[in-house]
Amino acid sequence: MKKNYLLTPGPTPLPPEVCEALAKPIIHHRTPGFQAILKEAVEGLQYVYQTKSDVFIFSSSGTGAMEAAVCNLLSCGDTAITVESGKFGERWTELCQAYGIKAEVIKVPWGKAVTATQIKSHILNHKSHIKAVFVTLCETSTGVTTDIKSIAQVLQGTDTVLVVDAISGLGVIDLKTDEWGVDVVVSGSQKGLMLPPGLGFISVSQKAWKLVNESKSPRYYFDLRAAKKAWEQTDTPFTTSVSLVVALSAALKMLKTEGLENVFRRCKKLADSVRASAKALGLTLLADESCASDAITAINVPSGIDGEKLVKTMRDTYGITIAGGQAELKGKCFRIASMGYLNEFDIILALSCLEKVLHQMGYKFQLGQGIKAAQEVFLKQY
Amino acid sequence: MKKNYLLTPGPTPLPPEVCEALAKPIIHHRTPGFQAILKEAVEGLQYVYQTKSDVFIFSSSGTGAMEAAVCNLLSCGDTAITVESGKFGERWTELCQAYGIKAEVIKVPWGKAVTATQIKSHILNHKSHIKAVFVTLCETSTGVTTDIKSIAQVLQGTDTVLVVDAISGLGVIDLKTDEWGVDVVVSGSQKGLMLPPGLGFISVSQKAWKLVNESKSPRYYFDLRAAKKAWEQTDTPFTTSVSLVVALSAALKMLKTEGLENVFRRCKKLADSVRASAKALGLTLLADESCASDAITAINVPSGIDGEKLVKTMRDTYGITIAGGQAELKGKCFRIASMGYLNEFDIILALSCLEKVLHQMGYKFQLGQGIKAAQEVFLKQY
Repeated sequence: MKKNYLLTPGPTPLPPEVCEALAKPIIHHRTPGFQAILKEAVEGLQYVYQTKSDVFIFSSSGTGAMEAAVCNLLSCGDTAITVESGKFGERWTELCQAYGIKAEVIKVPWGKAVTATQIKSHILNHKSHIKAVFVTLCETSTGVTTDIKSIAQVLQGTDTVLVVDAISGLGVIDLKTDEWGVDVVVSGSQKGLMLPPGLGFISVSQKAWKLVNESKSPRYYFDLRAAKKAWEQTDTPFTTSVSLVVALSAALKMLKTEGLENVFRRCKKLADSVRASAKALGLTLLADESCASDAITAINVPSGIDGEKLVKTMRDTYGITIAGGQAELKGKCFRIASMGYLNEFDIILALSCLEKVLHQMGYKFQLGQGIKAAQEVFLKQY
Repeated sequence: MKKNYLLTPGPTPLPPEVCEALAKPIIHHRTPGFQAILKEAVEGLQYVYQTKSDVFIFSSSGTGAMEAAVCNLLSCGDTAITVESGKFGERWTELCQAYGIKAEVIKVPWGKAVTATQIKSHILNHKSHIKAVFVTLCETSTGVTTDIKSIAQVLQGTDTVLVVDAISGLGVIDLKTDEWGVDVVVSGSQKGLMLPPGLGFISVSQKAWKLVNESKSPRYYFDLRAAKKAWEQTDTPFTTSVSLVVALSAALKMLKTEGLENVFRRCKKLADSVRASAKALGLTLLADESCASDAITAINVPSGIDGEKLVKTMRDTYGITIAGGQAELKGKCFRIASMGYLNEFDIILALSCLEKVLHQMGYKFQLGQGIKAAQEVFLKQY
């Protein structure tokens, strides 16, 4: 008997409520019944986004919503700042380049976060007008959280828009879209929102709408003007992923019942426990302590251990799927999620499997010390 | 007790096998387990597409895959032919225009199909080079099928590519992609393939790949070069809709078990029964008999009857959802699907409800005559 457990930073496990919603008979997307569900889903997104602005749903992965941000805000020849501190930050650069937008890249060592000061000095030192700054709330490849609030303050009162990839952070880490003044927040369904992949989300501030109406970039499927026009009739411009939207509505109800503050607290506790456990096992973390993410923890593979084999054995022999390192971190780290439909006991079982496989691979440590450190975290009040 | 039945031309009802697949625990998309399912799904698509070329899966609605065809094949300033004989033909024009491509529009009255001769003379009479011809296999808004085979013959040996929107026709009507020489076929999940909406598909011939490599249109999420590169590793460039792909694999197994020829025969029989029933009730069909689609039948609303109320009553009072008219046909026709997970008894119940509501609305006809005409069709050998 092999039981499977998923602790990857997307997709995250599906709650039974979501599985049930997915299995429901399909309904037509242009009926009052579906419109009511779509409306509920968008209101739920506004709650999680902490925004009063419209949030639009695309049938796409999160990357589709990232492309929507780029092509709706900017035109060929414009200049934007991107921050590369991991694989997903690089995606902003690639997207800008695909549309002929000049990307001024701020390179940050993987494992560290860009600071508001860096952004500020880059804008001041740069001759051409920076129309947008693209950052990543939680860099999934490194487990680093960016201080969005401080960056938003830098851009306050300017006509530069702030665009945040919150695919891995929404519903996990606090992101006060309206209060902090974040213009565009992009997200996806398969992380904090506890759904299968397949939906992309985007919020658009008044300041950003001005750019949307000016952009000359070619676009159709991801055209926010069409999305806005359809939404005036509680509709989407093209047939939406009905089953995923029905499940989204169910998942958002769960998040609302738990309460956003409690969700953040739960994820922080889970991430703290993973970090404490890693340290107790003599392992080091990839991310600087000052910017370690509560969505996902990247742990460095200790010397002498085959990182890819570690992840593969946990998955193929024991049924516990965590993630390996991506791109330049391949084989060098492994990543454990602390977001979505996960609780302390899921973490305990993953850590228990990690200890087992590390032991079998000849890594020297005291068995049970990682688990114990996590248990100690779980006994604390948060 | 109200039971609900869906007979709209997308989404079509989900088989229990698909509902079960959707409700399964999610798995990570970059694991051998998922790769095996993805491979099965692509092979199943090749079977339904009747092609040996790769078929790529996008997490998007069918329109996303249409956009992929336009931006991957053509660049700003190119010229293409589009055919407008309904709402979805117009979408090709809009997509071309969004990318600065000159669309030479062939306008065809709604309810009729473009002919190969029209395409041929348009190409001959046109000065600039036509890089692509965009047509619609089954125009969902009118219930008309286009003779793709003859159009493909016209383009054989030229360097103009033929692009077919088969969103509503794939797995319903015969479309011999390779044998006829169709370069690009676009489709979607929620029609003949019996899935929820949320997946778009595209096949690409060798002739079309040449254009893909030359196109200068900006693209990222829908970039076929990235899709091809990822597919070499049995992967997708961006997180795919795992649950929908698992369900796709299940649905394609069902289609393969039934056999494509049997599927076509079943859909034809269902469409024939709807057409026979409509005539027996003294109603007229929107589509010319010569080009009536086996995927969906559009029936003209008889004078004195409120078409929108008819559809609404069938749905809200009796639980039978059919579709009304779209765009310029709003209120003027209603549409009944004959594709996807539907059999003769689904059609009988829909016709019975249609007769009931027509009777209640004061339309004069002999009760049961529509049903009887359908029953007679179902007794025939196909």
